This record gives sequence, structure tokens and C-alpha cells, in this order.
Amino acid sequence: MTSVAFIGLGHMGAPMAANLVKAGLTVRVFDLVPQAMKSLTGLGAISSNSACGAAAGADVVITMLPAGKHVRSLYLGDDTSKGLIDVVAKGCLLIDCSTIDAMSAQLVAKSAAEKGLDFVDAPVSGGTAGAAAGTLTFICGGTDKAFEQAKTVLGNMGANILHAGGAGAGQVAKICNNMLLSVLMVGTSESLQMGIDHGLDPKVLSEIMKVSSGGNWTLDKYNPCPDVMPNVPSSNDYQGGFMVDLMVKDLGLSQEAALQSNSSTPMGALARSLYVNHARQGNGTRDFSSIFEQFTNSQQIKDKG
Amino acid sequence: MTSVAFIGLGHMGAPMAANLVKAGLTVRVFDLVPQAMKSLTGLGAISSNSACGAAAGADVVITMLPAGKHVRSLYLGDDTSKGLIDVVAKGCLLIDCSTIDAMSAQLVAKSAAEKGLDFVDAPVSGGTAGAAAGTLTFICGGTDKAFEQAKTVLGNMGANILHAGGAGAGQVAKICNNMLLSVLMVGTSESLQMGIDHGLDPKVLSEIMKVSSGGNWTLDKYNPCPDVMPNVPSSNDYQGGFMVDLMVKDLGLSQEAALQSNSSTPMGALARSLYVNHARQGNGTRDFSSIFEQFTNSQQIKDKG
Amino acid sequence: MTSVAFIGLGHMGAPMAANLVKAGLTVRVFDLVPQAMKSLTGLGAISSNSACGAAAGADVVITMLPAGKHVRSLYLGDDTSKGLIDVVAKGCLLIDCSTIDAMSAQLVAKSAAEKGLDFVDAPVSGGTAGAAAGTLTFICGGTDKAFEQAKTVLGNMGANILHAGGAGAGQVAKICNNMLLSVLMVGTSESLQMGIDHGLDPKVLSEIMKVSSGGNWTLDKYNPCPDVMPNVPSSNDYQGGFMVDLMVKDLGLSQEAALQSNSSTPMGALARSLYVNHARQGNGTRDFSSIFEQFTNSQQIKDKG
Amino acid sequence: MTSVAFIGLGHMGAPMAANLVKAGLTVRVFDLVPQAMKSLTGLGAISSNSACGAAAGADVVITMLPAGKHVRSLYLGDDTSKGLIDVVAKGCLLIDCSTIDAMSAQLVAKSAAEKGLDFVDAPVSGGTAGAAAGTLTFICGGTDKAFEQAKTVLGNMGANILHAGGAGAGQVAKICNNMLLSVLMVGTSESLQMGIDHGLDPKVLSEIMKVSSGGNWTLDKYNPCPDVMPNVPSSNDYQGGFMVDLMVKDLGLSQEAALQSNSSTPMGALARSLYVNHARQGNGTRDFSSIFEQFTNSQQIKDKG
Repeated sequence: MTSVAFIGLGHMGAPMAANLVKAGLTVRVFDLVPQAMKSLTGLGAISSNSACGAAAGADVVITMLPAGKHVRSLYLGDDTSKGLIDVVAKGCLLIDCSTIDAMSAQLVAKSAAEKGLDFVDAPVSGGTAGAAAGTLTFICGGTDKAFEQAKTVLGNMGANILHAGGAGAGQVAKICNNMLLSVLMVGTSESLQMGIDHGLDPKVLSEIMKVSSGGNWTLDKYNPCPDVMPNVPSSNDYQGGFMVDLMVKDLGLSQEAALQSNSSTPMGALARSLYVNHARQGNGTRDFSSIFEQFTNSQQIKDKG
Repeated sequence: MTSVAFIGLGHMGAPMAANLVKAGLTVRVFDLVPQAMKSLTGLGAISSNSACGAAAGADVVITMLPAGKHVRSLYLGDDTSKGLIDVVAKGCLLIDCSTIDAMSAQLVAKSAAEKGLDFVDAPVSGGTAGAAAGTLTFICGGTDKAFEQAKTVLGNMGANILHAGGAGAGQVAKICNNMLLSVLMVGTSESLQMGIDHGLDPKVLSEIMKVSSGGNWTLDKYNPCPDVMPNVPSSNDYQGGFMVDLMVKDLGLSQEAALQSNSSTPMGALARSLYVNHARQGNGTRDFSSIFEQFTNSQQIKDKG
Repeated sequence: MTSVAFIGLGHMGAPMAANLVKAGLTVRVFDLVPQAMKSLTGLGAISSNSACGAAAGADVVITMLPAGKHVRSLYLGDDTSKGLIDVVAKGCLLIDCSTIDAMSAQLVAKSAAEKGLDFVDAPVSGGTAGAAAGTLTFICGGTDKAFEQAKTVLGNMGANILHAGGAGAGQVAKICNNMLLSVLMVGTSESLQMGIDHGLDPKVLSEIMKVSSGGNWTLDKYNPCPDVMPNVPSSNDYQGGFMVDLMVKDLGLSQEAALQSNSSTPMGALARSLYVNHARQGNGTRDFSSIFEQFTNSQQIKDKG
Repeated sequence: MTSVAFIGLGHMGAPMAANLVKAGLTVRVFDLVPQAMKSLTGLGAISSNSACGAAAGADVVITMLPAGKHVRSLYLGDDTSKGLIDVVAKGCLLIDCSTIDAMSAQLVAKSAAEKGLDFVDAPVSGGTAGAAAGTLTFICGGTDKAFEQAKTVLGNMGANILHAGGAGAGQVAKICNNMLLSVLMVGTSESLQMGIDHGLDPKVLSEIMKVSSGGNWTLDKYNPCPDVMPNVPSSNDYQGGFMVDLMVKDLGLSQEAALQSNSSTPMGALARSLYVNHARQGNGTRDFSSIFEQFTNSQQIKDKG
């Protein structure tokens, strides 16, 4: 596969597309904001006038969009435009890297299959840093054959390419993981603060829990308590990282999924409520580990100021 | 230190004391149930007629008891008996390995200090298997000097001897950890079941989350979903392991601690309610990973029968 | 207004339509299950071969359907049929009494308005008993003019006709209310059981809280603890009343609404998780006050058997 | 009964004692802060040099203290003083109006009974306004005989004198009620805000829920949304009323009770966490209905400023 169309050049899409160019692939790009294509064409990508224009003739189409409605209308078409599945060449592989609801992914996969096209949902984790470094994790849904094909091209942008199951399974696995992540973050925050409230040193307590049965990703990589770990958002006034607003979005998708399958998710639902409250208090653009501050007392917060 | 008194020979205490005997120490034992001393004397331990009798003259006293009230009355004395702190030799090191409330531990430590004695609270994790194998983790509270002394003797019974801080800090760290563990277990259970409800294979989903930001101890060592991992309670009808009733006890201690320090622990408090409901439904003696069944549907449970 | 079309003759719709016939109105009825029309025609209603057939020429159309998708396709049409808004007479008033998502109600209202038709969303509460007795409560969304017109005809089926606001507001108010109801029911259940666990008589405790600041509808009308009140489901093995499955449906709608508006509803979300668990344990067709049994211990439940 | 000793003259105790004086009883008063006795002696009460001094010879002793430890040491004595039960006359009735843990109340009742004295735990609700107006509610625990005696004297200070059961039952009923109240307040707040988020008028929505199955004390008397009701704290920037810190105290007592009886209280435990977070954010001295602000968005709060 030598020719790729990349549609959607935001904070994540742009560095991802850049890695494809650097890998020597022919990359046609499109974004509704023409300015967004500039940095890519500077690297050697070819700009297009429309999504369909970029996709026509490509071996692989990759999309990176904000929400399910954008993915549905781009692939399936709407009042103003044909869908990608109407214009791509026979045998073209479709890969959507957006984080969206599983039902939209399944709907597009089904419509694509009816036209004889393979579709892979491949939401990512790893943030803008991982996108730039080419170390993203892709969690994929689709047939075995489509996954194997996708793996080759995604390998230029990520370090881990995982196969979760059939169509939509990538989205489901991503939101199960991110729902669990939010629970780890809140649970770790309240446990650390309770220790602090009893006079323990959060560094010592973190080290103990890390090697005990409380061990989890947040203690290993992303401690929410300021000054326990270097180079994490909590030690930088919760700047950078993964925004609260994005966690609220993912927790919304997880609750939407729970409603569809009539699943009970008491911890995930509680985490969503706490994160929504946190966002509404003006923390939407801070890192999601700032939920820790919901558990500290106001005096402690003020003392830092 | 060559002479140890070990008081409290239950499911955990007996194998712990056995490891001290095997290490070549002189061990005097006592338990309210005389029968409980038999297996130890068979190994070479010396039985005593009373706790005070075992403790008099020992270099180190180790206790393993059910609750704070037992620890307080044993060390401090009551209407019927002197306390251990009244009878032990000068320089004797006191180590309590029970999991109890931090306030009781602090109270005993303070009374011991007034008599010039060092006291270390050293609750364990690792279960009966770890007790037998001598691979327990001890989380200790006490002065640096007392901790260093305790480390030597505890090393005969455990693989990790951790220092959490001053008096009571061992208990606080232990319940912070176990509260967090309960949150990991419930959060992992609901996330796995939501994936299953959407058609995902729990083995595949577990592998994905294990290497992603949802990674935590339960996915690594103790998957709650049946037949994902071999040799864990969930693959053995939730037999063995760490009982629901013991998790309810530890979550009670964690909530008691949260009340003392006026801490907010929404996830830990929710986990306690779910575990109490689970115990009340007749699951008290099953492994604590059986909380997974709260999220499966009844039909699925029945199909296993 | 003398001529009404009534579409959807289930457990609620049939007795509601019967009250319109008894009030002397000309009622044309339709249901996908022809048998469902029999009892109505026996009372004097006129059966139709199709929903559109019933609606053509009517002064008022009333619908009572299971979910938003049914309401959308019936009013707006689909691949197989025209929509009601395409066939009704000029000036016909459209009233949907189904409990559905607010977005569907707003969509239908908007499409109707584009054809010059008034639409009122008017979900009901009061159950099958209220439907039979003509004492239902209708919570309506729509313009002032449409509401005033609707009030006249709804008055034949209900005792309280309330106006919540514009299009969709009836649905929003209904699910806000029912979400709050679920919180009252769970909160009252756990409070009563905690009293019982401490030896209090639930009758005495109920009387005290009823006249204190814990007073709420469930204590007044629907005590969840068996044998506190006569003639409520809890005193009849939780038979009759409002099914757990229906509460799960309404809590699903409330969480869907919370996602749309990015609202935080920690209590409502927790109630949903507890009710889903309860349904999955085989209680879906029992009365929703049976959530009380989640808080009693298994022994107590067994003793009743 | 003509002679009453009243000990503890804080915000509640002082106006309560005043009503006894106004009713024509002989009232001896004591408070650790001598200044606190001044307003009472101005009305005709007799000041004492000690609690025991006030109690000796009284027909009835009434106490109003901050916490269980104060009640225990006052009635039972400590290192520095005899207990009230050691000094009161034979036949003296003991009434404690403090809100404390049930175990302390039961302990004092038992010790009093061993001396042949009747003890009634009689925590109040109604706030300082009710204390001044003599319209408090007393929720009492004790024998039937003791309750009947207590009722006569309490009738001078309150409008409702309720009997919850034996010793300690007054405290249990009070905290069951207040835990339920916190759930009503949070549940009502999130339901109203979700309606507002969908464009509904909170006055209209409140009226609808008040007459529907969501009806509860907070909608009747204490609406948490500003400007829905006149003369409630929410319409006065959450000044006055029942402080967040006091609700946190009562929710702490309720969770302590839940731990004692191994009860599951998911809603009450969640309410406690939300209220502790709210207090830690600096809202401890505002009215407890200000929890509503946890659900509004920051922009809305700012607009009010």
C-alpha cells in the first residue's frame, strides 16, 4: 500500500499524518480548515479540495474526527455530499481513528461491507505526545483480514496495534479502558488524600500501594498528587496531559454504551458525575488528574497559590 | 534476637509462627484455644499458659489478633489481666501484625512509649498462602529504629517489609491500599462485564486493558471474570482467596478512618455498600472477586450451574 | 372536539381510550394487534385498519407507544408508510402520551410545526390503576394554546393536567420526576433498613420520618418495607405496582437526558446501577419498591419464605 | 416537676432553657462559658458553679452538648469530676437533647439504669428558629414511662414529641432521618438542575414534582434552587438555616451507625462524600441546600455575583 488519504488534521491527526509522510508513503490530506493542511504539505503531503477528492484512488483512507455524527456523514454521505464509501476505489481499506460511539462505527462498517469494503475502527490512546512520537496505541475492531492490513499502516504511527474483535469492538474496548482509567484515577486520588489526612507522606504511600494490591497505571505513570512524580501534569499545576473535558466526553460515551447494553456501571457512572462537577467548576481544560483537588481541602489548595 | 513470643495462632498466625520456628528462633506461643498450639509445639515451639507468660522474658513479642479491642486489652490490660506492656522485659520489641483501626494502634504505641518500649504496627497482606510460604508483605508504622529491628524478625515471615511512617501509619497505609483494591476490583468487574455485554471476549479485553491505562493489579494477578486466568478464585467458583467478609471488615476500617480525618472517599464508600449488599446476599465466605457476579445477569449465572 | 383517534392499546392505552368512549367522544382506535381493539369496539369505539386510517379526519390524535423510535416512525413516516403528520386534517391536535426521550418529542414537534400542526408531548403517571380510574397525571410540553386544547380532552382520562413548558418539556419533567422518585425509594429503603438493623420498628421509624425533614412520597404512599402500610406492593410480596424493568427504562431515559445536557446526576446514576443489578438478579417484573430487599440480609428474606 | 437543671447553653440550648423559664419552671443553668448564663439569669434562671451543682436536687436534668464524648464524661464522670448519675436525687429524670452516636446514648442509659435512674435520649430538629419559637421536634428513646414523663417537660420547648423506641432509639431515628434528608436534598438538586439544563423553569418543575411521586420535604419547605421559594436560605445566598458542617457531622454519625450494624447505605455514603467535598471547598458555614451549586455550572454561579 503506497497511497493514503488522511482526513482530519487536528491536534492528533496532524502529527499522525506527518509520521505517515515521514515513513515514505504518498499521503493526500484534507481538513475543513485549509490552514491545517499547511504544515503537512510542507513535509511533502498533497493537499486536497475535499475529503472525497483525497480519498478517490487511495489504497487506504484514515479519518480522525471529533464525534460519531461527523464519521457517519463523511463515510455515508449527507444532503450536501457523497459518502467516502461511494467514491473510494475497489479494495480500499477504511480506517477510522476517531473515538466515537460503537453504534456509529458498526453502522459505517455495515454500510461499507455492503459495498464490499473493509472498515476498521481504530481509536487511539497516547495523546498528542504519542502522536508526535509515533508511539500511539491503536485498539482495533474489524475482521482478522482487515486488521492485519490495517496493522501495517498503523504501525507507522503507533507502537501497539491491538485487535479487540469485530466491527465496533475497538470503540467498546477503548471506552471500557477509559472508564476504568477514570475509576483508577478517582480511587487513587481519594486513597492518597485519606493517607495524607492521617499524616502519611504521599510519596511513601504511593510506593507502598504501587507494589501492593492497590497497584495501578496511575501510580506507575501518572500520580495525581503534586510533587510525587516528576514530569507529570500534577507536578506542573495540572497543565498538559489529557483534559478533563475529554475525559467527560469519553465517560459520556461509556455511559451511552452502558445504556445500550443495559449494563450496570456504578463506579464509572459516579466517576462521570464527579468529572462533570469538576468541569463545571471551571477545570475543563486542566489535566484529568486534577480531580485530586476535589479531595484536598481548600486551605491546602490556597497554600499552593 | 533469639527469643520470640507469638500470640494468636489462627489461619494466619499459625503458619507465620511456624516460619519463625523453622528459621531457628526460640518461639514461645499462646492462643486462647489450646488446640491451636499443638501444631506449633510439634515443630518445636514452646507452649505457654497465658499471653503474659509467653511474653515475659522474650526479646520480641508478635501478636496476630482479630480486632482493635483485642489488641488494646492484650497490650494494655483489663479487669482480668495485666497488659503485655506491664510484664515484658526492658528493651523488648512489640510488633502487632493484626489489621485494626489506626487509633487503637496509636493508643498502644503511646502507652508502650510511656514505659520506654518500642511498638510497631505491622499489618500484613498476602493471605494464608503467603503466610505459609513466608512471602507476606508487612506494612509497618513506628520509629525508624523500631522499624529496622522489626525488619529483621519479620524477614523470616515475609518478602516485603515496608515502612509507612510513625505509629499507626502501617494500619493507615494498609486500609488505604485495601480500599483502593476494592475500587480496582469493582471497577474492573463492571468494565469487563460491559465489554462482554457488547460481545467482546473478556480474555481479549483483559489483555488490552492490562497494557493500557486501565492496567491494575486485578488484571495482572486476580482477574474477576471466570476462565480468563488459571489458578485464581474466579476460575474455581470463587473459592479460596480473600473472603468477602474480610473485605467488608477492611472497608469498615477504611470508612472509620475516613470519618476520623473527615475525608471524602466516594469510590471506597460505594465499594463498601456494594460489598455489604453482596455479603448480605449470602456471599460472605466466597472470594472477594465474586463481586463480578453483581454485574452479570442472572441467566448467565444460572447457565454456569 | 368530538372525534378522537387513539393509537396504541396496551395496558395503559386501552383503559385510557375506554374513558374517552365513556365520556361520549367519537373514538377511532388502532393497534398492531387486532385483538387489542376488541374490548374497545365492544364499548362503542370504531376500529381502523391502520394508524393513518384512524387519524384521517380526526380532531385529535392520541398515541401511546413503547419508545421514541415508534413515535418517530409513526408521526414522521418511514419506508413502508406515510407519517401521521402527512395525513391528518388541518387543525388536528397531536398528543403523544408515550414516555420517550425528549429529543424524539422535540423532533416530531418541529416537523409537525412545519406542517402547521400543534403537537403536545404528554407522558403520564399513575399506572394502570390510574388509567382505569381516569385519575392519571399528564405532564405536558407544548405551546400555551396547544396545552389548553389538550387539557380539555386529557381531562377525560386524568385528574391532573400539568404544563411543564415548550415542546419536549413534558418528557423532561417526567424523567426528572421519576429519577428523583428512584432516589427517594432507594434512600428511604436504606434508611429504614439501617433503623431496623439497630432494632427500631419500621412502622415507628416511618411515622417519625414522615412528619420530619425526611418526609417524601414513598413514606406517604408507597412504603418499601413489608407490612408497614396495607395495600401497597411491599405488603403483597412486591406484586403489582410499577415494575423494576420500567424504572430501569425511565432511569435509562434520565441518563440519556443527562448526557445530552452534560448534567451531573450522581444519585440518579447510582440508582440506575442498583436497579439494573436488581433486574439482572431476576427482579425485573416485581414492583420497584422491592429494591428494599437489596438492603435486608439474606436470612431475613429467607425467613419470610 | 417544678425544678429543672439545664446544662449546655449554646445556640440551641440557650433559647430552649429560656422557654422553660417562661413556662414558669424553676431552672438552674450551667455552661462552661459563664457569659452564656447571663441572658438566662436575666430571664429568671438561677446560675450554678458546676454541672453537678445545678443537677443536685433537680427533678429533671436536661443536657445539650456537642458530641458523645462530652455526654459520656458529664453523665458518667471522669478523672476530674463525679458524674451526674452520681449526684442527682433519687427519681430524677435525665434527658439528653444532644445529637450524638447511639452507642454513647445506650452506654449512659445503661449506667443510669444501674443506679435506678431513667434516661431519655431526645435529639431535636428544627434549628435555632424552632428553639426560639418553642416548636422543636424531639425524637426520643427510652422506656414508655420515662418517655411519658419527658414529654411533659419537653412540651414546653417543642411542638412534636415523638417516641422512637428504647434507649438510643432517638439518636438512631434522628440520624436515619437526617441521612435521608441529605439524600432528598442532593437528589432534588440534581433533578432540578437537569431540568434547568434542558430549558425548564425550576419553579414550574418544582411545582410538578411536588404534586407527583418525586414529592419530598425539600420541595415543600426548603427548595435548594435560588428564587423558587421566598424566605428560604437558597433565596438568601444560602445564609442561615442548617450549616453544611452540621450536615457533615450528622452524616458522619450515620456512617458510624452503618458501620456498627454492618448496614449498606449507598445513597447516604455518597451524600456524605459530596458534602465533605463541598465543605472542603469552603462552604462549611453556608446552608446545606447550597449543595445545589455543585450541579450548576461555574458560569451560572459567576453570573449571580
